[in-house]
Amino acid sequence: MEVESRYVAVRHHVEGLPSEDDFEVKAARVRWSPESGEVLVRNLYLSVDPYQLNRMKRRSASHLAVDGIVPGERIDAYGAGEVVASACEEYKEGDVVAGVLGWEDYTLFRPSPGVLMSKLAASDDLPLSHHLSALGTSGMTAYAGLYEVGRPEAGEKVFVSAASGSVGSLVGQFAKLAGCYVVGCAGTNAKVDLMKNKLGFDDAFNYKDEPDMKSALKRSYFPDGIDIYFDNVGGETLEAALANMNTYGRVALCGVISEYTDASHRAVPDLLEVIYKRITIRGFFAWDFLRRFAEFTGVIGDWIRQGKVHVIEDISDGLDSVPSAFAALFSGDNIGKKMVKLA
Amino acid sequence: MEVESRYVAVRHHVEGLPSEDDFEVKAARVRWSPESGEVLVRNLYLSVDPYQLNRMKRRSASHLAVDGIVPGERIDAYGAGEVVASACEEYKEGDVVAGVLGWEDYTLFRPSPGVLMSKLAASDDLPLSHHLSALGTSGMTAYAGLYEVGRPEAGEKVFVSAASGSVGSLVGQFAKLAGCYVVGCAGTNAKVDLMKNKLGFDDAFNYKDEPDMKSALKRSYFPDGIDIYFDNVGGETLEAALANMNTYGRVALCGVISEYTDASHRAVPDLLEVIYKRITIRGFFAWDFLRRFAEFTGVIGDWIRQGKVHVIEDISDGLDSVPSAFAALFSGDNIGKKMVKLA
Repeated sequence: MEVESRYVAVRHHVEGLPSEDDFEVKAARVRWSPESGEVLVRNLYLSVDPYQLNRMKRRSASHLAVDGIVPGERIDAYGAGEVVASACEEYKEGDVVAGVLGWEDYTLFRPSPGVLMSKLAASDDLPLSHHLSALGTSGMTAYAGLYEVGRPEAGEKVFVSAASGSVGSLVGQFAKLAGCYVVGCAGTNAKVDLMKNKLGFDDAFNYKDEPDMKSALKRSYFPDGIDIYFDNVGGETLEAALANMNTYGRVALCGVISEYTDASHRAVPDLLEVIYKRITIRGFFAWDFLRRFAEFTGVIGDWIRQGKVHVIEDISDGLDSVPSAFAALFSGDNIGKKMVKLA
Repeated sequence: MEVESRYVAVRHHVEGLPSEDDFEVKAARVRWSPESGEVLVRNLYLSVDPYQLNRMKRRSASHLAVDGIVPGERIDAYGAGEVVASACEEYKEGDVVAGVLGWEDYTLFRPSPGVLMSKLAASDDLPLSHHLSALGTSGMTAYAGLYEVGRPEAGEKVFVSAASGSVGSLVGQFAKLAGCYVVGCAGTNAKVDLMKNKLGFDDAFNYKDEPDMKSALKRSYFPDGIDIYFDNVGGETLEAALANMNTYGRVALCGVISEYTDASHRAVPDLLEVIYKRITIRGFFAWDFLRRFAEFTGVIGDWIRQGKVHVIEDISDGLDSVPSAFAALFSGDNIGKKMVKLA
């Protein structure tokens, strides 16, 4: 069996802010045979995530953990799809799967313990797209980062940056469910409105309105200090959060998006604060908690069904929209989990 | 009862590098009465520690954790002394104590659970000075920082900065006892020689010989990466260590002495490395582990008796030498634990 399968590639390594012109959509044919041991998936939803930018750089610390992306070649990415042919017992034609697929129409994979792929139950009652957001790596990242790294206790004060994004919007809601006081920041008033009026944050602000964030945090949002900072952005926001943290504060370092596109934009933390306040700063990865994937997504799924967690998604149409969807992540345009739905 | 008791004070807040001229020795009289509930101690040894510099600044994160030092007033400091008068059951004339005393001839204290003071056993067979070094806060800091924050496993690679100092010299030896590979750095060849030939470090180097420490660590000292970095200095050394750390590496942030005297000298860590290598950076304090003081110092005492740990001390004579001893901490002159012996 052979199918036409277009895929999105980068034309060259991408340094700095990405644009649509850095990408091209290429044609290919994917061949599957019953002897291959492989499963052929027609992709239905593809995830579009900021961390992919680090993979596109010529050099990045990212390459220590995830393979770099080779210009011209297919790009693996989380997604959901339908099995159209299978040479494995565990998968049948018509099964719906979520896991590591690719920015392409069809993906071939060979099941193994090292491949993240789950077969969705036929009885699954939640939208398929949620398996890329709250029930996928965004949910895992938010859950593991908040509960395993941040370890919130009721009454603690939690600050979230990029808080209307795929991960931040969940972190804030999860922290409210843990009994915390939650403030988020983001870069537009619409995002602030979403946090305050739909997601149930205690407060939220537009960081563009607060050029002196260190003072603003103290004056307006955390007069009693921050216990947990869930960092998606790095840079001055991290500096300001550290300066306002309480003793034994925890920083869950999830992303430093302000540094992805500009390495000169690095945070210069005051380490005296880190010592004297006995702060823990911990970088983490959702993947490190993979063995607990079913446990975490089970809890999140129940919260969604009970109406306790709102899932915010920003869905573009068609494989051709992947480059613009990706570039939009860095211009502050999107709200919630960015993904692409294939025709 | 009233005694003449001279004390060392700062003339003014101290910013930048301290010098002897920042201090003065002042005369006072200390009055004790049987009704006071207090204990009067004649001080025998006084500890001289870099962290005191942060207390001497007008503004410092230090003040969040430890009271700032007021110009002209007495300065509390760890030390050992002999009880000369006591209005408390637990202490008798002639008892020898170690704990928070002061840079002064005599100290009055009122026993309470919040006051760090221990009475030494009459059978104590180790030099009294060791209760200010390996059996005092330096030992606690090294033990807690390495074992509780660093959590070494046999075979792991440990890097220690300021490694011939009061804390570093113990951390390196403790890490060897944990079965680790240990490399230390310091600023003179005599210190390097001490680490390699007396303290049993696997290797050591003079950081002044390695202007590109990031490359030097990779090339010469940690070709397989660093698992634990015990940081006493901050600045470029921290940046270089982070760049060479392995996945799941731990940084025990004990001191950032290069930043004590020059706040512009801050480390600019690459947070992408921290995320992708899932590094934990944790500021800590020996005081947070005080309830385990007896446990930790018991183990360290046994190691000293068994000849497994060498205690390096640098002892000046007389209260008048406190200012020069303190200033010397920041010029890289001293080796091991700096303290002053009173006449």
